[in-house]
Amino acid sequence: MRIQDAVSRRTFMGAVSAALGFLGLEPQGELLSSSLLQGRGQRGQRAGQAGDQGGRRNAEDYDTLAKLANNENPYGPSESVTKAMTDAFKYANRYGYPDGGVNQAIAQHHNLKSENILTGAGSGEILNAAGQAFLKDHKLVVGAEPTYGSVFSVASGIKKDAIRVPLLPDYRLDIPGIIKATHTHYRDVGFVYICNPNNPTGVIVTKQEIQQLLDGIPGDVPVLIDEAYHHYVNDPNYATSVPYVIEGRPVIVARTFSKIAALAGVRFGYALAPRELIEQMRTYSTGSTSALAKWAVVASLKDGENEAKVKSVTLALREKTTAQLKELGYDVIPSQANFFMVHVKTDITPVIEEFRKRKVLVGRKFPPMDEYLRVSVGNESEMDRFIAAFKEISPGKQQAQAAKTSA
Amino acid sequence: MRIQDAVSRRTFMGAVSAALGFLGLEPQGELLSSSLLQGRGQRGQRAGQAGDQGGRRNAEDYDTLAKLANNENPYGPSESVTKAMTDAFKYANRYGYPDGGVNQAIAQHHNLKSENILTGAGSGEILNAAGQAFLKDHKLVVGAEPTYGSVFSVASGIKKDAIRVPLLPDYRLDIPGIIKATHTHYRDVGFVYICNPNNPTGVIVTKQEIQQLLDGIPGDVPVLIDEAYHHYVNDPNYATSVPYVIEGRPVIVARTFSKIAALAGVRFGYALAPRELIEQMRTYSTGSTSALAKWAVVASLKDGENEAKVKSVTLALREKTTAQLKELGYDVIPSQANFFMVHVKTDITPVIEEFRKRKVLVGRKFPPMDEYLRVSVGNESEMDRFIAAFKEISPGKQQAQAAKTSA
Repeated sequence: MRIQDAVSRRTFMGAVSAALGFLGLEPQGELLSSSLLQGRGQRGQRAGQAGDQGGRRNAEDYDTLAKLANNENPYGPSESVTKAMTDAFKYANRYGYPDGGVNQAIAQHHNLKSENILTGAGSGEILNAAGQAFLKDHKLVVGAEPTYGSVFSVASGIKKDAIRVPLLPDYRLDIPGIIKATHTHYRDVGFVYICNPNNPTGVIVTKQEIQQLLDGIPGDVPVLIDEAYHHYVNDPNYATSVPYVIEGRPVIVARTFSKIAALAGVRFGYALAPRELIEQMRTYSTGSTSALAKWAVVASLKDGENEAKVKSVTLALREKTTAQLKELGYDVIPSQANFFMVHVKTDITPVIEEFRKRKVLVGRKFPPMDEYLRVSVGNESEMDRFIAAFKEISPGKQQAQAAKTSA
Repeated sequence: MRIQDAVSRRTFMGAVSAALGFLGLEPQGELLSSSLLQGRGQRGQRAGQAGDQGGRRNAEDYDTLAKLANNENPYGPSESVTKAMTDAFKYANRYGYPDGGVNQAIAQHHNLKSENILTGAGSGEILNAAGQAFLKDHKLVVGAEPTYGSVFSVASGIKKDAIRVPLLPDYRLDIPGIIKATHTHYRDVGFVYICNPNNPTGVIVTKQEIQQLLDGIPGDVPVLIDEAYHHYVNDPNYATSVPYVIEGRPVIVARTFSKIAALAGVRFGYALAPRELIEQMRTYSTGSTSALAKWAVVASLKDGENEAKVKSVTLALREKTTAQLKELGYDVIPSQANFFMVHVKTDITPVIEEFRKRKVLVGRKFPPMDEYLRVSVGNESEMDRFIAAFKEISPGKQQAQAAKTSA
């Protein structure tokens, strides 16, 4: 593990792809290269602006791409959700309007009270609020490396400090390592961040490991458990951490409607936590969600059928694609999410570019896993295009041949 | 003028209607009483949750109300804007997507560069970012009283400090007073806030006064000029402050698509400022706007015809209604916005309730203007209902009679 040094604002603004992805603080209108167009929150949003650099033509280009870079749901919102948004157009001009009882709906969904909920424009805003609330006074965040946007903290807007605990050789989070780091740096730790299942690996933290973590660290250290990919998990050793919130333990569960509900572009996420923690975070949240998002969310919570359909087709395509890759001789990290990592045995930077040439967008690099390509599970045709491109590129093999030739 | 004392978090959370309206930090799911349903940003959004307390029935109730409380545009977005949002549904599931070049479109619209623009989910988020950026280290904001959400600052999330300069007897901002206060408290001033035209009065700050202000205060004090109601102004003594941004002076102009563009519920606003100031604010902005909002904004910028139509009908109805009130013997503050204040010569709290009983929502109280009712300009039928209710209620007269009876 290592502690990031305090850095200057300039350096901080430069080290964006990791740090800012985590805290949702990416500068707008920057970072337009397509290799950065992944993850959730601002990074991806900028992508749109990137896509638009060339105007309308690029909107058409965009439609032709196989979009396997951002862990999006390729099917889009269900009909009932689209209808709910259309119906909500009549509130487009209003501040105060009936919102379908979105907060109550979320509370009921989780057997919690409204006071236990903080909503935001995507879970990026939730993570941002947590960062600002719990990392004041130069506190540190403890987390895995790699994880979603890497674990970084922003204190005073100009420093980033994080204790990053490498994954175990089997790609699981090193829970004993995270516990030990939390104890060692106890006075400086603002919170612990866990992404479950973890992004970019798709590997879960088991319910036993979550229990071990919560029992193993000092009782006043909040643990933020980011369950963005919750809905895709089948492994019986996984469980949501919501019951810890109900128990009143210092646990914040972050959820998003960007994944299974296919509302990434509509922006709605929320945190579940004991009231005191929610209030601390609320100070740093604008909670500025749109009327369309609220009604979409209410409709989405009722549409279990679509959720089940998306899960089923996504997992089937994930299994099919990973089996094909294994047949081609590549190792794939077993995933419980709507993405997976394939070990291509060579640095992925040129590989990403090769896919890009074939109009297939794949995930960016997640150091230190520089030889692992993260692939989101798109629709059937996108996965076929991915496999076709993969066969052409034959990553690793090509590199080895190139090395042979130049030797 | 007076300086707000530092207050405890509890008190701070209690003093919401003014302070939180300004900084967009209102607790979610609270403050559900309809008397608080005004202004822009979070306060209004909560209103919707209020409206929904009774479920579907209240959505129907909402439709029957004359909505003159929130300075909304009663006509809703134009057809081209609604179409743009519908077309953008195809990006609902995406992070990275073509966004119509929204940042470039705004930049071009103002003859500025993308680096001079910060977008956010409504101008509430912009004001919030400014507050967090410029009021660090317990700095103070200087502004008028009353003004939008009153002038307050949030430093460290638990304190609010503001220097509030009362309006002049003719309801204009006291620019010499604001200059003097800025000099007196120079070391502690984070920024100056000007709402132009001012909310709740609708009175403009003239271009000469803006010049006087900028030339009169120390050159390193940023001035945030909130031009939310810019599009409704006809007075030739008014001018936008965007040219000062182009000149590179420390001016931040805030704009919103919530008013003339009728997109309050869709959430999109922006700041224009020199690059350095934008970068300071960006750190505190999630910039998490929706795909639908971005495309709506691009379409809206192109729809000057609709803008002109909304302005024309709104000003005509404002003039008609204020003439009717004058005929009834009431003074009205001459307004340059889509709302106006009528002097009802009695405390407005029970008056607001009387309107509410007649299904007419009017503005809340803006201390110390306790006898002035703020009325948003709705559509023709809403204004007819307002005048009918006003005649029935006869504020002031009734109070005088009641006093006579009980004496």
